[in-house]
Amino acid sequence: MNDQQFFVKMILDNWQGQINAMSIALGKLSDEQLMNEISPERNRGIYLLGHLVAVHDLMLPLLRFEEVVYPDLQPIFVDAPDRAFESIPPAEILRAQWSAINERLLTHFNTLPIADWFTRHANVSDEDFAKEPKRNRLNVVIGRTSHLTYHRGQLILLT
Amino acid sequence: MNDQQFFVKMILDNWQGQINAMSIALGKLSDEQLMNEISPERNRGIYLLGHLVAVHDLMLPLLRFEEVVYPDLQPIFVDAPDRAFESIPPAEILRAQWSAINERLLTHFNTLPIADWFTRHANVSDEDFAKEPKRNRLNVVIGRTSHLTYHRGQLILLT
Repeated sequence: MNDQQFFVKMILDNWQGQINAMSIALGKLSDEQLMNEISPERNRGIYLLGHLVAVHDLMLPLLRFEEVVYPDLQPIFVDAPDRAFESIPPAEILRAQWSAINERLLTHFNTLPIADWFTRHANVSDEDFAKEPKRNRLNVVIGRTSHLTYHRGQLILLT
Repeated sequence: MNDQQFFVKMILDNWQGQINAMSIALGKLSDEQLMNEISPERNRGIYLLGHLVAVHDLMLPLLRFEEVVYPDLQPIFVDAPDRAFESIPPAEILRAQWSAINERLLTHFNTLPIADWFTRHANVSDEDFAKEPKRNRLNVVIGRTSHLTYHRGQLILLT
């Protein structure tokens, strides 16, 4: 294993560890519990779940893999706050999408050539990337791992 | 900048970004707000602050830099749950320690030779490290960044 392979493995192992921790946390919550707020007048658990599915879905184009799979989720769970929509997908559907989107990302992760992790992500131009090579695809995974962990700290309050 | 330097920079920049985000969040909370629970019957903000100071202090020996600076914090904020002790340090002191411990870590981070980041941390033996080279000092920073972000997601509920 060369240095780059080793770095990528460190980051992806950490990502997968946080995905697993979130899946375990979700498994301990009933659909009814997900309808509760994490704290008075704060987001409901189901909103956080939908938010994470939508943000992970958006990683597909951000990492230049493919288009989003669930385009209907972004208006509800990214562009709008909780309770802006009267009707949202049920927990059962969102749980299945949570598993499916992470599986799909993992398949892409495992087939991307190692050197390509250090190429630009979709939201940075070639010019800007030349100045800031840190804005690569691997850094997207680092940032989204933090995002996931941030919200897991909140979801855990429902147990 | 070689591959190792670049990778270490990616990880340390992410750490520092999360430290800054937490410092900003703390700056928006009064000492009185820190005495509130993040959610009914959950940890108080001040416990989370003390917990983070103590855990970051423990990174000093874990990263094989030096002994802990605040040995009195660990029994209160790591070994025991919130409210186990009647008397705990005031928010003013913990805020100063939060800044000081992160500054101290940063000084060590900036002087550690790059190759040494890929050597074992204190809680892994030479034998186990030979089998699992991922258990290096840099991985401690990756893990503690997640830990910090997890609790920032909770502390933010006090605002």
